[in-house]
Amino acid sequence: MSASLAISLDAMGGDNAPEMVIRGADIARQRFPEVHFLFFGDETRIAPMIDKLPALKAVSTIRHAETEVKMDDKPSQALRAGRGSSMRLAIDAVQKGEAAAIVSAGNTGALMAMAKFVLKTLPGIDRPAIASFFPTIRSESVMLDLGANVQCDASNLVQFAVMGNVFARTVLGVREPTTGLLNVGIEEQKGHEEVRVAAQILREAQLPGTFHGFIEGDDIARGTVDVVVTDGFTGNIALKTIEGTVKLYGTFLRQSFKSSWLAGLGYLLARPALNALRARVDPRRYNGAIFMGLNGICVKSHGGTDAFGFANAIGVAVDMVANGAIEKMKQDFAQVMATPGASEIAASL
Amino acid sequence: MSASLAISLDAMGGDNAPEMVIRGADIARQRFPEVHFLFFGDETRIAPMIDKLPALKAVSTIRHAETEVKMDDKPSQALRAGRGSSMRLAIDAVQKGEAAAIVSAGNTGALMAMAKFVLKTLPGIDRPAIASFFPTIRSESVMLDLGANVQCDASNLVQFAVMGNVFARTVLGVREPTTGLLNVGIEEQKGHEEVRVAAQILREAQLPGTFHGFIEGDDIARGTVDVVVTDGFTGNIALKTIEGTVKLYGTFLRQSFKSSWLAGLGYLLARPALNALRARVDPRRYNGAIFMGLNGICVKSHGGTDAFGFANAIGVAVDMVANGAIEKMKQDFAQVMATPGASEIAASL
Repeated sequence: MSASLAISLDAMGGDNAPEMVIRGADIARQRFPEVHFLFFGDETRIAPMIDKLPALKAVSTIRHAETEVKMDDKPSQALRAGRGSSMRLAIDAVQKGEAAAIVSAGNTGALMAMAKFVLKTLPGIDRPAIASFFPTIRSESVMLDLGANVQCDASNLVQFAVMGNVFARTVLGVREPTTGLLNVGIEEQKGHEEVRVAAQILREAQLPGTFHGFIEGDDIARGTVDVVVTDGFTGNIALKTIEGTVKLYGTFLRQSFKSSWLAGLGYLLARPALNALRARVDPRRYNGAIFMGLNGICVKSHGGTDAFGFANAIGVAVDMVANGAIEKMKQDFAQVMATPGASEIAASL
Repeated sequence: MSASLAISLDAMGGDNAPEMVIRGADIARQRFPEVHFLFFGDETRIAPMIDKLPALKAVSTIRHAETEVKMDDKPSQALRAGRGSSMRLAIDAVQKGEAAAIVSAGNTGALMAMAKFVLKTLPGIDRPAIASFFPTIRSESVMLDLGANVQCDASNLVQFAVMGNVFARTVLGVREPTTGLLNVGIEEQKGHEEVRVAAQILREAQLPGTFHGFIEGDDIARGTVDVVVTDGFTGNIALKTIEGTVKLYGTFLRQSFKSSWLAGLGYLLARPALNALRARVDPRRYNGAIFMGLNGICVKSHGGTDAFGFANAIGVAVDMVANGAIEKMKQDFAQVMATPGASEIAASL
């Protein structure tokens, strides 16, 4: 990789911004010495923090932004009034070719609206989706949409399936991914019209890999399929439900080890293995959701993450740039849309 | 409790019926010696199995049913053609007063349609919902709807909030329950119109307890509220996502303990505590979802459960009968609907 790999950062997005963003970049800097960081935000707050981190300062540029998008701004409002915001300027840098990708932990709706407006969608995509991958019993799977579209029609779901399929092939390295539609049962008549029609189209379409059919909530962690397709309302809730359940289990586990003297001794002996488990399910490790379907790499970090989590979101962006994800996506989309299956999809919608 | 407490069982419902149902009843019999079981199903299959269990036989009656509802039958089909089915006859027994409650592990949609048709809904309820309780970091919470209604309007969600509130007060013993609406964010403008309107009504209505507002997926396991309200599509997926994640974590944990000799020794020392944890999160322990809003107790067991899980579903039915849940529900509903808040709800819808 050349020294020109620049990553654009919205320094003002996230619960603990800008400090969390700057400390996250400082962690990422150690993993990716070839990256240059473009910080967009309030220079009077950012500059003193970066001054204290000379190694980070050496690979960083600060670009002052007059305003910032608030967490409760409506997307339309952010799009209209946020032209001088840190988020918008950070996205603009990607569009101008000054940066290869943008990472923000800010307002998800605003980021999606701005990124879609500035970067545009890839051919064949009506609405971008948020995708993220997570650990399963089998290996790793990707799920989308995770919250960009709270209401989706059958056509959106079919497009998400195509996008997720490309994601699994280009990022997870699965040659022929299996795809499943999240539903309340696996039988054909289950669910609402949107999922039933989408399943019908996907059963007939000739996409790479296999359309598994409907899957249920417990199939997500089981890794029944490589690609879990759902609307943004359900996907967002399912993802956060997983996070919450992992925390619950961790709490129960700690209580178990404290419940007796022997259990406490057992914990001490098993501690290295349990620390490895904790790292394996640490949600910060999987922080960094990708806005799929855009003509540019835009990674959304969890708003409440810490520096370690934000560094992982930067890592996702760097990996996508290094693997030429957008070029592969364009090629794969063109290929997918040129198949008879895709024509049938288009005709059916 | 008198010896007249009869529980009606759909012996043909569930993946491993009738054996699982009969063995489940045999476990429940030991916990509830006062219960009499009415088995509805194929006598030629049921009778030989019960003959092998003399203690169960002594407290059981077999009622032959010519047909059974299949797992892929549509609810309308089951309602029309299933009058002689084991499921329908088992529900009829409750309506006739021959049994105090019915338990089935069969087709959820068919059971709901039949139970609603035969038992009718309580005053003020348009559509019944499926409710179940589960462990949280704080204690236990109830969630509804878990799959009865895949699409819900704001009015349905408000009614679910009222039902869940009553459930928390009468079954979980919480005096002033907190209620939350599941959404993709906690800010007022988040989510689709149905949840936003429902939240607006609930904020204005004077229900017992507190309306917390929107909650997110990770609030479910955290126990942020006593009552989690959502549509049946999202609720079903969220519940099964929790089950799947618990299994994932259990698998990872087993792998951790096998990863080294010391970790294995640690496991041996901590085993009693870890077995207690396993029992605490065992989904079979929370098996038994209640159809809320009906004028009769109808408990739905997980279709894929085993005898231990089915016995717990019977336990839920017995507990509800013993605690006079329906009478309390009727009283509470009348009280709730008589408050100015409820009138506002009715006027708003």
